[in-house]
Amino acid sequence: MSGNQDGIGVGLIGFGTIGTGVVKVLKDNAAEIEQRLGFPLRMVRIADLDQDTDRGVDLTDIRFDADASALIADPNVHIVIELIGGYDVPKKFILEAFEAGKHVVTANKALLAMYGREIFGTASEKGLDIAFEAAVGGGIPILRSLREGLAANQIETVLGILNGTTNYVLTEMESTGEDFDVVLKRAQDLGYAEADPTFDVEGIDAAHKLALLTTMAYGAEVVFEEIPTEGIRGLLPLDFELADDFGYKIKLLGVAKCHRGDGGTERIESRVQPTMVPKTSMLANVDGAMNAVEVIGNAVGPTLYYGAGAGEMPTASAVVGDLIEIAREIKRGEAGPVAPLSYLPQHIVPKETVPASEVLGRAYLRFTAKDEPGVLSRITGALGEEGVGIASVVQRESGTGADTVPVIVLTQTASEAALGAALEEIGKLAEVTEAPRVIRIEKDV
Amino acid sequence: MSGNQDGIGVGLIGFGTIGTGVVKVLKDNAAEIEQRLGFPLRMVRIADLDQDTDRGVDLTDIRFDADASALIADPNVHIVIELIGGYDVPKKFILEAFEAGKHVVTANKALLAMYGREIFGTASEKGLDIAFEAAVGGGIPILRSLREGLAANQIETVLGILNGTTNYVLTEMESTGEDFDVVLKRAQDLGYAEADPTFDVEGIDAAHKLALLTTMAYGAEVVFEEIPTEGIRGLLPLDFELADDFGYKIKLLGVAKCHRGDGGTERIESRVQPTMVPKTSMLANVDGAMNAVEVIGNAVGPTLYYGAGAGEMPTASAVVGDLIEIAREIKRGEAGPVAPLSYLPQHIVPKETVPASEVLGRAYLRFTAKDEPGVLSRITGALGEEGVGIASVVQRESGTGADTVPVIVLTQTASEAALGAALEEIGKLAEVTEAPRVIRIEKDV
Repeated sequence: MSGNQDGIGVGLIGFGTIGTGVVKVLKDNAAEIEQRLGFPLRMVRIADLDQDTDRGVDLTDIRFDADASALIADPNVHIVIELIGGYDVPKKFILEAFEAGKHVVTANKALLAMYGREIFGTASEKGLDIAFEAAVGGGIPILRSLREGLAANQIETVLGILNGTTNYVLTEMESTGEDFDVVLKRAQDLGYAEADPTFDVEGIDAAHKLALLTTMAYGAEVVFEEIPTEGIRGLLPLDFELADDFGYKIKLLGVAKCHRGDGGTERIESRVQPTMVPKTSMLANVDGAMNAVEVIGNAVGPTLYYGAGAGEMPTASAVVGDLIEIAREIKRGEAGPVAPLSYLPQHIVPKETVPASEVLGRAYLRFTAKDEPGVLSRITGALGEEGVGIASVVQRESGTGADTVPVIVLTQTASEAALGAALEEIGKLAEVTEAPRVIRIEKDV
Repeated sequence: MSGNQDGIGVGLIGFGTIGTGVVKVLKDNAAEIEQRLGFPLRMVRIADLDQDTDRGVDLTDIRFDADASALIADPNVHIVIELIGGYDVPKKFILEAFEAGKHVVTANKALLAMYGREIFGTASEKGLDIAFEAAVGGGIPILRSLREGLAANQIETVLGILNGTTNYVLTEMESTGEDFDVVLKRAQDLGYAEADPTFDVEGIDAAHKLALLTTMAYGAEVVFEEIPTEGIRGLLPLDFELADDFGYKIKLLGVAKCHRGDGGTERIESRVQPTMVPKTSMLANVDGAMNAVEVIGNAVGPTLYYGAGAGEMPTASAVVGDLIEIAREIKRGEAGPVAPLSYLPQHIVPKETVPASEVLGRAYLRFTAKDEPGVLSRITGALGEEGVGIASVVQRESGTGADTVPVIVLTQTASEAALGAALEEIGKLAEVTEAPRVIRIEKDV
């Protein structure tokens, strides 16, 4: 099967939040995807029992009905996305898709943790792809990194914050000092936690994800039920207070380590537990509903992957990333391998540079000025004339014997052009004895 | 070319630190690599003018001479690794390799930033792979993530700490309050900075990397010389002190943003500058010689990739990751696509679990006990009997009217088995009224 002239056709089973995100991403980012892939990816068919809810997306040219089996059999569908959730029904459809020679993308970690053996076995037997980047860490490309980027390593440790709901609850408990029940209720009201939060709160969702990570890190077949799993119920404000005193934060971690012995023996330690991590570690600073996975390899050392672990668009990002990979495989002969610079050569073109008048930001400015009256007002005056607002000014006393003083200005948001013009004016002042030091302040971090 | 029966042959030009790391990784991790790939990757030939230095690695079965052109022409070499550094000589060898129909792996960001157009153009024309994961972020699989994992996104921002030397210097200046020159001298003594540190300290190395990231994120052809680049010279202890007061840390960031206008216009903002980032951000916590890159996509939102940005083994991890990818491409027909679970199905096997007696760690234990004399000594006694050492004990006063108190114990390193036995004994004490809460302390983060 090599796809039709118009690109690769995608069918979606399960048109909920994530499915809606997939439709949006394929539409909004169609140009970028085609410039990276060389041909379009088209959503051609969707199946869902709920035909009534308005998902707020344009369904022109997409066939939408309730017949998942007909979708799987549709010759225009080359890749089937399963986003139903649960076990038996999605398993049935995935196996049906393989039977029909279709590749599959899923985000269903519970299904893969429980029935992975059968699903991966069937895919391998049929020579078909099964992709599931969205199953762990939402939009973070952690599985691809483990499988490809770190493929040269013996993995020593995989551990991480694998569940956004519990990380949100823990972060809130830490910052507010409130009880678990109060915070959980608020998480439910805000949509961060489900009405029945058991899967998240008891660590089961994290254990599903850890099972997949453990297999991928160590080639270890994992029996999900055997992973020691403890949730976050029963943690008290006192625990957070004392953790803080001891220099720690409390996170729900999934941890899998490989103990390698003499003669090549490999034994696996894995668990999901509330865990204290040093405040200064990267993981300690993963707050709210974010996820992060740390992978330690024997060559690469410690690496960490951070991002949104759930949600409509981040999860859709991972699903569509998988579609792109499989589509490239299908169109192999026509498409060639991954473009080394991400975009195909003909789509790498000179692009205009944003002029300094439109580059906006705040800055820290340090001037060295003569210790004389009126200097400060001349500096701030020059900034004001170019429209550079001032957030804060610090003038230090000069050291013994020095005849200059440092004058520090923290600006409001201003353009590079305005800042440059003001600095030029200030440079002309006789009282300013050295070129100023400018340190930008970055908000997008 | 489909490789020989014995796997894929690799030739290395430039046998310095990174090259030595590549030889080590291919040897030490040969089993894992073959279990992921389905066939071995073999170093068959090395070329370097220095034939005398002992690199401390076993060169059995590897031909080692000074003739790079003969290496390129050698029919046993399917992939050529270029690790010479510089411009003209490596460029000549890379083009020679393409001419001979060989795929190329390089870590040379300077070369790619300056002559990328010709090198990528030739590779594309010849239908050959050029891989360069090691060129940015050392062992962090950031380029692969940008190219594949995030391929579904319009990238909005790429920014990061792209140079380990400068990050080491900035981290040290921040923590010690010392002058730039003092810290740079120490970095040179420790091998974190070169004798001539210009490339690092002036931001040129970071700009080379940013040029590659900008092209990959936005399909924008970048003229390296046009990236506004400022180094870290001239920063004073005072700047760090005030940054701290204002709630920031100072990092040397490479930043590239895409401004998208109506009608699909795309304009690029890029720069390398010392920058203040909020103390609570993930980037602010990237210390020492580590690197981190943040990528913000319109679907995935903010994501971050962290790890060692340089060094023998981390860089070798990226080089060998590239070899694995290309080897899989070469052996396409025989090897099939990437194994979904990273290891090939036949290498995913049940592995032994580490027994509780060998799982070691520290723990925070919270007991709820009757507010009676002797309770503390009974709890600590039970721990001691099982060999669980105590690092700290906290007993809080009971609240008004409560007849129980929380007793907290921070243990020394002990086995799960010993801890479990002690907890069982403690559970039998009449004075302990509830099941204890255990929170492990993770050191591997």
